[in-house]
Amino acid sequence: MLVAIQGDTASFHHQAAKRWLSDGCEIVPCDTFVATFKVVEERRADLLIVAIENSLYGGINQVYDLIERYNYPIVGEIHLPIHHQLIGTPKTPITHIYSHPVALAQCEQYLDVHYPDAERIEHHDTAAAVEHVKLLGDSHSAAIASREAAELHSLPIIARNIEDNPANFTRFLVLEPSGVAPADANRTSLVITTDHAPGALARILTIFADRSVNLSKLQSRPIIGSPWKYKFYMVIDEAGESLNETLRLVQPLTASLRVLGSYRHDRQN
Amino acid sequence: MLVAIQGDTASFHHQAAKRWLSDGCEIVPCDTFVATFKVVEERRADLLIVAIENSLYGGINQVYDLIERYNYPIVGEIHLPIHHQLIGTPKTPITHIYSHPVALAQCEQYLDVHYPDAERIEHHDTAAAVEHVKLLGDSHSAAIASREAAELHSLPIIARNIEDNPANFTRFLVLEPSGVAPADANRTSLVITTDHAPGALARILTIFADRSVNLSKLQSRPIIGSPWKYKFYMVIDEAGESLNETLRLVQPLTASLRVLGSYRHDRQN
Repeated sequence: MLVAIQGDTASFHHQAAKRWLSDGCEIVPCDTFVATFKVVEERRADLLIVAIENSLYGGINQVYDLIERYNYPIVGEIHLPIHHQLIGTPKTPITHIYSHPVALAQCEQYLDVHYPDAERIEHHDTAAAVEHVKLLGDSHSAAIASREAAELHSLPIIARNIEDNPANFTRFLVLEPSGVAPADANRTSLVITTDHAPGALARILTIFADRSVNLSKLQSRPIIGSPWKYKFYMVIDEAGESLNETLRLVQPLTASLRVLGSYRHDRQN
Repeated sequence: MLVAIQGDTASFHHQAAKRWLSDGCEIVPCDTFVATFKVVEERRADLLIVAIENSLYGGINQVYDLIERYNYPIVGEIHLPIHHQLIGTPKTPITHIYSHPVALAQCEQYLDVHYPDAERIEHHDTAAAVEHVKLLGDSHSAAIASREAAELHSLPIIARNIEDNPANFTRFLVLEPSGVAPADANRTSLVITTDHAPGALARILTIFADRSVNLSKLQSRPIIGSPWKYKFYMVIDEAGESLNETLRLVQPLTASLRVLGSYRHDRQN
């Protein structure tokens, strides 16, 4: 299986891909999120794995939009604990720290305390930032990335697990153009639009509550071309026949309803 | 009044600041969003103006977190139409295009069609990207920024209004440490937490609907340290004494409720 990911070997996306296809997978590294969708569109990869949400950083807006635009079914999710390492030559002072903007944001308080004067430079990928620091050959530069990236590029770890909060998880989604929901699916992603009033949304949530359907995620999103009118992106813990029954009740309350995919949610993974 | 903004002279934040303080304002330019909050904390600025949401791009997660962490009252909002210009020497081919990542994302389809092979390089500020292109003196490089930035740096506009959707607005918030709600406030930002069930949220939204309180924005946000438990960031079109009555009804249904500020929302501004 060829898997398109944003990032390169030893990136967090690569780790998510290895977790999904435990019997080995070949990655197609891409510079941007949109490139991962294009690579699949051009049939240069069979599926794509993309970060949708981080427990510290929040949802990744651009990915929501790409999922809707390309309409590839979501067939799986992966929860990956994220630990960041400061990687480089153990020599002070460090004047430049390279990483992906999300990784820099997740280590912000650590950097404020330990390296307040170091310049933080955004890079498109954490693992590539390590490679960049290695190629620079500058002992005053460091990168923030995974343990795997430090090993891949044979650079020492200066400080371990520097993320500001240890409960740092990223949720990845698996999208496959010809994918179908697995038989053990227990979670579903939806996009609905309602009129602007909170009443319609309240009635939809009441249906969920009455049917004991857990709402894992609710996010209002702008509607392109209609400033400040919102659609709602929802993740509910239901799939299969009971989901169909729920949606039959919800549909009349919406202006539009689209199922983005049903997949297996496993708290332990 | 000294106003901390992310970006420099002629940035979109600078335009928002000029709109807020129409009788002239002095800006304190900052490289990052967090720096704008720190500058105000150190009393090197009186207030800060920060983008919270773009109609194409969505909410800016980091800013939500900073608003909660610093707890400066929101005292105003500004809606600014955003038009992007491609700025540089009108000579093909263009091989490098510099801008803020949000601006690059907002012009993605235009760039895909007209400059599919140009490398897109992220810069911390749109106006600074124009200055960078000017200093490079490289006729194959261009920047994406406002008309004002092109004028400031005396570089020609190669293509006008290249944003993918003309309904492109950014919503900015005005935060002032000692600020109070204006007398004509008609909108309020709240953060609430509930237990994980959709029932509590449904009951809160029903109270809003019964009282004809419009919900302009609803966003679930991760709770730091509690992966996949959510709090809700809400914007409702109510303020003053009637808001207090609504909150008296809502409070018992929440685990926590915090008012981030009441301010004037003006559709025309």
